[in-house]
Amino acid sequence: MSVITLLTDFGNDSPYIAAMKGAILTIAPECRIIDLTHGVRPQNIREGAIILHDLHEIFPKGSIHVAVVDPGVGTDRKILAAKLGDHFFVAPDNGLLGPMLESYPQAELINLTRKQYWRNPVSKTFHGRDIMAPVAAHLATGTSLEELGLPFDSPLPFSLPKIRIHQEQLLLASVFHDSFGNIITNLLWESLDISWRDRMVSSRVLEWRRESGEAIEAPFVATYGEGENGEAVCLVGSTGRIELAVVQGNAAERFGISPEEKFSLRILY
Amino acid sequence: MSVITLLTDFGNDSPYIAAMKGAILTIAPECRIIDLTHGVRPQNIREGAIILHDLHEIFPKGSIHVAVVDPGVGTDRKILAAKLGDHFFVAPDNGLLGPMLESYPQAELINLTRKQYWRNPVSKTFHGRDIMAPVAAHLATGTSLEELGLPFDSPLPFSLPKIRIHQEQLLLASVFHDSFGNIITNLLWESLDISWRDRMVSSRVLEWRRESGEAIEAPFVATYGEGENGEAVCLVGSTGRIELAVVQGNAAERFGISPEEKFSLRILY
Amino acid sequence: MSVITLLTDFGNDSPYIAAMKGAILTIAPECRIIDLTHGVRPQNIREGAIILHDLHEIFPKGSIHVAVVDPGVGTDRKILAAKLGDHFFVAPDNGLLGPMLESYPQAELINLTRKQYWRNPVSKTFHGRDIMAPVAAHLATGTSLEELGLPFDSPLPFSLPKIRIHQEQLLLASVFHDSFGNIITNLLWESLDISWRDRMVSSRVLEWRRESGEAIEAPFVATYGEGENGEAVCLVGSTGRIELAVVQGNAAERFGISPEEKFSLRILY
Repeated sequence: MSVITLLTDFGNDSPYIAAMKGAILTIAPECRIIDLTHGVRPQNIREGAIILHDLHEIFPKGSIHVAVVDPGVGTDRKILAAKLGDHFFVAPDNGLLGPMLESYPQAELINLTRKQYWRNPVSKTFHGRDIMAPVAAHLATGTSLEELGLPFDSPLPFSLPKIRIHQEQLLLASVFHDSFGNIITNLLWESLDISWRDRMVSSRVLEWRRESGEAIEAPFVATYGEGENGEAVCLVGSTGRIELAVVQGNAAERFGISPEEKFSLRILY
Repeated sequence: MSVITLLTDFGNDSPYIAAMKGAILTIAPECRIIDLTHGVRPQNIREGAIILHDLHEIFPKGSIHVAVVDPGVGTDRKILAAKLGDHFFVAPDNGLLGPMLESYPQAELINLTRKQYWRNPVSKTFHGRDIMAPVAAHLATGTSLEELGLPFDSPLPFSLPKIRIHQEQLLLASVFHDSFGNIITNLLWESLDISWRDRMVSSRVLEWRRESGEAIEAPFVATYGEGENGEAVCLVGSTGRIELAVVQGNAAERFGISPEEKFSLRILY
Repeated sequence: MSVITLLTDFGNDSPYIAAMKGAILTIAPECRIIDLTHGVRPQNIREGAIILHDLHEIFPKGSIHVAVVDPGVGTDRKILAAKLGDHFFVAPDNGLLGPMLESYPQAELINLTRKQYWRNPVSKTFHGRDIMAPVAAHLATGTSLEELGLPFDSPLPFSLPKIRIHQEQLLLASVFHDSFGNIITNLLWESLDISWRDRMVSSRVLEWRRESGEAIEAPFVATYGEGENGEAVCLVGSTGRIELAVVQGNAAERFGISPEEKFSLRILY
């Protein structure tokens, strides 16, 4: 019984989510369908890409992840399927798989071309329901990737902004606000070299300087509960990314931070 | 393993959705439960009716669709079950099944009266949990429609507004805004005669005139990506209905269109 | 095939919900996962506690209810598992189980200590995914409570405000607003003595006096449909609690009532 996860920008109220599930269950009645999220901001490929990258690994090996943030639906953009690590992915070729493909640069990609695995007819406006969901369902029932189309080796590139280090400052960016208003950044703790990590852990206060010049001071803590209520803190979040949070509060609202804002981070003392 | 779908106006935050699922699983532990949508605007029977009509067919044949938009709960309004085409439906007799019943005018309806298939006691305020969910679960485990109650032949009628043609204009109405702000109308592309369709496909610009007199000009396109970002376009949406959209934008917000607004649509050139 | 329900304050858009489901399915691929609600207001233990108390019993006996409203994550607050009545619960020791523990004061509680049932490593900020979800999954696959940790007998107490009767007035409080804006209170109809119930049923108008002095008059009805559209009514809701509602409207918005407001309720005539 395979697991199929769905990530979309449809919003939780949308009956289009159910349409994808109906298309899947018609082909693969036994598979498990899990909503990864439908709260990606409309047509925000970057946000979908990072959630897909950060969340997929918690699912059982062999899970099939369908990602539909697809402003180019119906145009000549391709739709891809791939096995990346231990997981399968089905998504438009628009960057949604970008961070995954950076991790698996040698992966074989399939350009979905075999219409016998699609719904018929295919609407021009909803390939999530008519191509991606049925293809995922066929993968769940044992169809191989190779049967679904042709090899493809030039996916649209898409990278998160890279961390840079400049004069003892880390130049980073927020990539996602979670539902508590915590500011999740592109900085993975494991990617920091050990001397930076040691200094951060033993520091007392970090400074997050915004492009506006405003500075937010926040101690580096292990968990939210180590700070005072209402205090800004900096910590390693549950997906391994450095985040800026307000204890029992909402950092995004408190500081008016946008989902793609840049910061320079330094150890104040 | 039957599929039961749930359509309600409870809102996704509501624990009442889970209450219906618990009631179902207690009777039919193996059935699949899919959320069709819980985003119907509160007590908006018309919106629930159209989503139910447009979305049910994507599910496997034999699926059971439970629809709870039920302002008359606890009064003497009846609750109906029916097989319409290849699908089962359970819903209050308040018009929710109206568009379905127009498609299947000969269908046998059952007025739910057999209390042995309900929860006991039955609350006066939540028949979704206490009558409709358990009845759907019994259908899923093989109970026949006839066992659930008595034949009934006078359901409350409910129709979507009909399309009219007046002096080369199509008089139509929005019936639903999707989560991208696309304006879905009561005009089914397949219901238009072939000469209208030909002329629309070969037209360059359509005019949507609002009751206020304001005119919105929009080219007829095959898919969103054919327009420019920010441009209003007109197309056949994924459920076969004509819709008005803004490319990479939100038409409902941009034009301030209400969910039940009327338009006269004509080919400008 | 056990049922695991999830109650959190993550919000429906949050991919953290899916993370918990992935952690569960990796251990217990056959179990059913149902969203109890993810709409608990952030860090509002009281609201989570009452929903958990009021809703769990509709699920099949043996269901496992995981509740994650956990502002103290990563601190030394404990995480508990227990069988209360016919249901299992996994939740932080912060009061979330309070109303349940009042109903089952003799219940054996387990303080989760056996790390072999957790994910490894355990993040400091997401014990829902790393401890509570895996423990629930192990319970679903047959692990006994006793294997999960050590007996524990001093949970953090937490009670809903008690009803008081003062000079023929019931002093009560709102504990939850449902998605229709109905004001659900701490007054369980079954807990009222029979003379009060008789007088309420035969009354014509009840008065809800707010702390501000404002009085809301509402007839006692059996169901919403007995009132006029727009009228305030008082009734026994679907979980057995007295509620204040506006027929076809939203009482919370109409009267500007906060989720923890106090009232004195009396029979006007």
